[in-house]
Amino acid sequence: MLDSKHLRENPGLYVFLPLFYTVWSDAVLTPSEIKAIRNVIDAQPWLSREEKEFLVAQLNPSSPPSADQLKSWLDEIRTAGLSADKQESLIDIGVRLASRHTNGSGKDLLAKASASLSGIEETLGVISREAAFNFLPVNRQTKTASQGTQYTFDIGKLTTLLDGPNAAIIRKVKAIISDPELSRPDTGDLGIYREKVLQWCRMLAAQGFGSMAYPKEYGGQGDMASYFSIMETLSYHDLSLVVKFGVQFGLFGMSVYFLGTEKHHRKYLKDIGTLTLPGCFAMTETGHGSNVRGIETTATYDHGKQCFVIHTPDELARKEYIGNAALHGQMATVFAKLILNGKDYGVSAFVVPLRDASGKLHPGVTIKDCGRKMGLNGVDNGVIYFDQVTIPKENMLDKFATVNAEGKFESPISSDNRRFFTMLGTLVGGRIGIPRSGLSAAKTGLAIAIRYGDQRKQFGPEGGAEIPILNYRTHQRRLMPLLANAYALHFALEYLTNRFLKRTEEDMQEIEALAAGLKSVATWNTTQTLQECRECCGGKGYLSENRIDDLKNDTEIYTTFEGDNTVLLQLVAKSRLTEFRQEFSNMNLFGILNYVATQAKTSLQEKNPFVIRNTDDEHLLDAEFHLHAFAYRERAVLTSAARRLKSYIDDGMDSFDAFNQCQHHLVQVGFAYIERIILEQFLERIASTQDEGCKTVLKKLCDLFALSQIEKNKGWYLENGYMEGVKTKAIRKMVDRLCAEVREEAVPLVEAFGIPDSCLAPIVR
Amino acid sequence: MLDSKHLRENPGLYVFLPLFYTVWSDAVLTPSEIKAIRNVIDAQPWLSREEKEFLVAQLNPSSPPSADQLKSWLDEIRTAGLSADKQESLIDIGVRLASRHTNGSGKDLLAKASASLSGIEETLGVISREAAFNFLPVNRQTKTASQGTQYTFDIGKLTTLLDGPNAAIIRKVKAIISDPELSRPDTGDLGIYREKVLQWCRMLAAQGFGSMAYPKEYGGQGDMASYFSIMETLSYHDLSLVVKFGVQFGLFGMSVYFLGTEKHHRKYLKDIGTLTLPGCFAMTETGHGSNVRGIETTATYDHGKQCFVIHTPDELARKEYIGNAALHGQMATVFAKLILNGKDYGVSAFVVPLRDASGKLHPGVTIKDCGRKMGLNGVDNGVIYFDQVTIPKENMLDKFATVNAEGKFESPISSDNRRFFTMLGTLVGGRIGIPRSGLSAAKTGLAIAIRYGDQRKQFGPEGGAEIPILNYRTHQRRLMPLLANAYALHFALEYLTNRFLKRTEEDMQEIEALAAGLKSVATWNTTQTLQECRECCGGKGYLSENRIDDLKNDTEIYTTFEGDNTVLLQLVAKSRLTEFRQEFSNMNLFGILNYVATQAKTSLQEKNPFVIRNTDDEHLLDAEFHLHAFAYRERAVLTSAARRLKSYIDDGMDSFDAFNQCQHHLVQVGFAYIERIILEQFLERIASTQDEGCKTVLKKLCDLFALSQIEKNKGWYLENGYMEGVKTKAIRKMVDRLCAEVREEAVPLVEAFGIPDSCLAPIVR
Repeated sequence: MLDSKHLRENPGLYVFLPLFYTVWSDAVLTPSEIKAIRNVIDAQPWLSREEKEFLVAQLNPSSPPSADQLKSWLDEIRTAGLSADKQESLIDIGVRLASRHTNGSGKDLLAKASASLSGIEETLGVISREAAFNFLPVNRQTKTASQGTQYTFDIGKLTTLLDGPNAAIIRKVKAIISDPELSRPDTGDLGIYREKVLQWCRMLAAQGFGSMAYPKEYGGQGDMASYFSIMETLSYHDLSLVVKFGVQFGLFGMSVYFLGTEKHHRKYLKDIGTLTLPGCFAMTETGHGSNVRGIETTATYDHGKQCFVIHTPDELARKEYIGNAALHGQMATVFAKLILNGKDYGVSAFVVPLRDASGKLHPGVTIKDCGRKMGLNGVDNGVIYFDQVTIPKENMLDKFATVNAEGKFESPISSDNRRFFTMLGTLVGGRIGIPRSGLSAAKTGLAIAIRYGDQRKQFGPEGGAEIPILNYRTHQRRLMPLLANAYALHFALEYLTNRFLKRTEEDMQEIEALAAGLKSVATWNTTQTLQECRECCGGKGYLSENRIDDLKNDTEIYTTFEGDNTVLLQLVAKSRLTEFRQEFSNMNLFGILNYVATQAKTSLQEKNPFVIRNTDDEHLLDAEFHLHAFAYRERAVLTSAARRLKSYIDDGMDSFDAFNQCQHHLVQVGFAYIERIILEQFLERIASTQDEGCKTVLKKLCDLFALSQIEKNKGWYLENGYMEGVKTKAIRKMVDRLCAEVREEAVPLVEAFGIPDSCLAPIVR
Repeated sequence: MLDSKHLRENPGLYVFLPLFYTVWSDAVLTPSEIKAIRNVIDAQPWLSREEKEFLVAQLNPSSPPSADQLKSWLDEIRTAGLSADKQESLIDIGVRLASRHTNGSGKDLLAKASASLSGIEETLGVISREAAFNFLPVNRQTKTASQGTQYTFDIGKLTTLLDGPNAAIIRKVKAIISDPELSRPDTGDLGIYREKVLQWCRMLAAQGFGSMAYPKEYGGQGDMASYFSIMETLSYHDLSLVVKFGVQFGLFGMSVYFLGTEKHHRKYLKDIGTLTLPGCFAMTETGHGSNVRGIETTATYDHGKQCFVIHTPDELARKEYIGNAALHGQMATVFAKLILNGKDYGVSAFVVPLRDASGKLHPGVTIKDCGRKMGLNGVDNGVIYFDQVTIPKENMLDKFATVNAEGKFESPISSDNRRFFTMLGTLVGGRIGIPRSGLSAAKTGLAIAIRYGDQRKQFGPEGGAEIPILNYRTHQRRLMPLLANAYALHFALEYLTNRFLKRTEEDMQEIEALAAGLKSVATWNTTQTLQECRECCGGKGYLSENRIDDLKNDTEIYTTFEGDNTVLLQLVAKSRLTEFRQEFSNMNLFGILNYVATQAKTSLQEKNPFVIRNTDDEHLLDAEFHLHAFAYRERAVLTSAARRLKSYIDDGMDSFDAFNQCQHHLVQVGFAYIERIILEQFLERIASTQDEGCKTVLKKLCDLFALSQIEKNKGWYLENGYMEGVKTKAIRKMVDRLCAEVREEAVPLVEAFGIPDSCLAPIVR
């Protein structure tokens, strides 16, 4: 086209060049749009018949320009550039191009042309202006490209705030896991990996980490807080190590400590803490995982021989998934039903030797290897069968129940069930250690995905450079709320830990509910976070060397062990229902009526037409609003669950069926409660933060956490008239905005986790 | 208590036994409730002072009954049983118990007692009736326990319906993968696994499966439909095999077939189909995955030597993740920028020899092993570097572009971009094969989890047997909608395949959008399904032998390869926007005004106050309603995205920034479109089903699919006034009901997939 005599004779024809280029260069223009262009050309009074034919011929699909011609068109058009205000259309650019060729002469003609081409503009509208961006000079600058990492707060101060009083032990563990001696083996061989993990455990035990929580008289430091920090920090490194460590020093050791009495402590604790006595925690059976009360292994007391006989009555009663059992465990805390004179006294715990130090199994003990698992392949999980294995009477861990000298059962807790739950309650530490470990894995995933997203560039504006993928809104939407969750859960788990460390007996019910709920929410969050991180790292995320593989597969089982999350959340709900009832039963009739009246009034205030439609930034970012929304939902979901249960039972439904009918609802009760606690703790932590930089960024994260939760539950809020659509839409926009803002601080925010470089992926190291 | 003289003297005291048992047996009663019981006892006129003291003493926390005593209380209470209507309270049972001991005498006293104990009833209310269930005789029957698998349709007929015209080839492949010869190795050793997968591929090639889709003259059957069915069926077995098979016969072979011309077909296709020539598809580079247009490998033409020089200019330009490259590939289809006389002519494809038959690399070719991956470890992915590798001119796959005899570039498509997308369009088959493979993996996971859930029993009513976990509402909620999705996607992918097999050039844009969208939705659904299946199988789901490990980790990358899902859904959205514009540009001004008016009218009808609050079963289960809700959302989300984009660009925002601002919104456009297509195809398939049994169960699945999607999007529907809260709440209940109904047919529904037993898990085999 460019070398045609028509253009030489009438440079006004250049007006059409940007349009023509757009037609051929991309599928942006539709066939009907091209037809409309032809019609407009035909109708131009300032063009000769020949010129029109020439122009229309340029649009003929059967005679396209060559690739070389198209390239020269683009070069030509780019000489005209795009005006600064970026409001030009294809015709505007064409007019400017033509006027360069006419050297300013023929201005009138061009003005006329421009006006009469309005038909094209009308048809193309915004498309025309959109296409015009393709002619921006090379190095086109966009707002999207200009986003980048900002450092607005002191990373070290935030790390100090996160680590709190355990900074020293955290630093120590970080130094150890950064040691090349601990580099993780790249192997699919179970034997090599398991041996390596055992060595690591020995090394940690030798340095006193294993016995950290045990009393000083048994070689420990009596420091449970540090024990949790050790587990949490080791979790940046290798989760098999964490679980093996936890089985030995936590589950096995703590069961001896909390369920046993002084004779057991004296006899075993020191050897457990030094790993001289490797052991197992044999609770779960093939047939009974969640419903541990139903286990079938028996411990039958023989008063004559002063011993117990441990026995596996059938295949489903074998102990399964037992960590440390396949290879290394020499002893196990075995949970079994105590049988005394033919009567069943419920579940008790016993220490049972499995194999001698050389690895030879004791008579009557059969062990199978669980084999390859989805993850945690450095842990030797096994299946254990007991065939009439005799253990001395003193091997019963007799803190909560015992057989007295007369051979009679004795316990301070008469109900088998209540005794069982009290026993389990002492082991709640596991439900604190696991979510903290899972959170470390999630943080590692976020550190990898966010740093990668900040570096990895892909796509960009036509004619501009490629931009970091973390600048894309979908990428921000995927990762930023999860970063906010990680901070939120950090403070919530810290709160749970402190409640546990300072527990009194009266607190226990609440702490158990908190632990069960936070364990569920945090471990599901880990699974979700690592899933997003994998996808956000694309193919790189799939390579094992980049760590998300192991982090994800190792923590996958966290949603199941230490209690299946769905089951745990129902326990939380039941505990909430009991508290709810207690609240009511403390009132007399007048109190209840008064309460109902207040509720109705509050409800009116809550559903004030101004508030339910309030979309002011100030309101949307107000912590009072967030907390109110969370608490309102918590109370409403709980009340409606109680009402539903009552109405089913009033209608004569079996209580078991009634609970099953409401099961999905009860899980929501658990979530709503835990989410309110998390928000409350986040807010308290912000309130007590002195450093302004940290305070500001934490407030932003907390806003994002709160609003993205509200957005997730917007269906519920709308259903219940707590908000109107204008407000939920405004919240969606605010979440978008907060994601974009947090993106700029995301890299320093993951740096503040202080994860050792050796634990990060090669793609970001 | 039972042997107390008070009870002997006044058997009326038995009235309190059920209450007292409840106080001690479990933590069901709160301290304030116990206090209230004490007060009521104190106020009983028919009790002596001594008796009152005796009774209150039974509630003293510091002197609990012994475990043995508690057991005997329960035995005693159970003699009274619970009446048939199950509406009794603890007091009612107590009264009946007491009357047994008074032998009917003292009726008046009991009536009086019962009346005056109303204070307790008032305090305990529903709790009292709930606790009473614990005294039901052993073998307590509940509705929850009574649920079980029903066979209401002919499984064979449903399998026939699913397999359709490809039943023969599907049966053949199933027979092969059931052969013990193909048993999967339990190994973490990459070498062993990769060798095994290569052997399997050879075996399949020898039987003519590899060349199935190639023309007969090159040794094939010209049967693309069968090729897809082979991929899909092999996916029940081993995903590494599927991917290795797909790389060789699909990606490598099809690129030679679709991008090359006759000379290439003659030279290579036969050897590719028999696996005599193992090859790779080398498109992705470390620096360019999603944005393939930006790849940097160069193919520089040398007219004098009549050759191309293939070169990797820098580290980021190396080819990465290339299947078959690390060990077995002898040739590769390499995508590179064609450079002619120093000018860049965009991406073209070339066949480049990598190594000889003995495995020796050709000069200039360097290959690294990608090493261990999250999954697909039977595939030898590698990294390839080219250092000025010379290939003859005829190695250019020249269907869409060529260098002519004069050394000039020639192509029927002038625009580099458009040519590139046309080239890619011919490879759309990969975006059909992958989601179909992923769906098979999801089906396998569902078959395992659902059959396990039907067998696995856990928990149950106090005094009753444990019940199958699939009877729990949360378990049903987790698995049943995913089962519905599997059926829905089966029909949608069948539709996509048929559209592809019968494609014309005009269809291509739509087919590409459909494939991109369905690939995204289906592969994300696979990830989600296998995640739920793992969790629903608990610890068993974590053991590798039960298959979910591999299924999940192998298909994890499906959301990334053949196009990152988030990127693909934006392509779908852009294609929808173009169609949307086309629809408008076909109208004149009058037409547009008319359209807007109609929209407003429809909108009024749609938002008819009766309809938006209609909660009748008939309406909620009406396919017309479902389809309307899907289509309304699709149109509304698309319109609002278009409006947003326009308004940003009208405001002078760079078009690239405008698209980024709307990115999250655009992804929703893609989802809404694909979801409508899926529902439409499901409904069409039901309409054409003759067998009544199949038709009925498919309709139920389709209802569940439709309503659970609507429930998922209820926030949107409420925000936009399409439904009110009463209706979304009714939909939630209907989803609950449908989940419970589908649960009863879930086992036959997964049996209808016809997955070979050898591909299922030991837990359900």
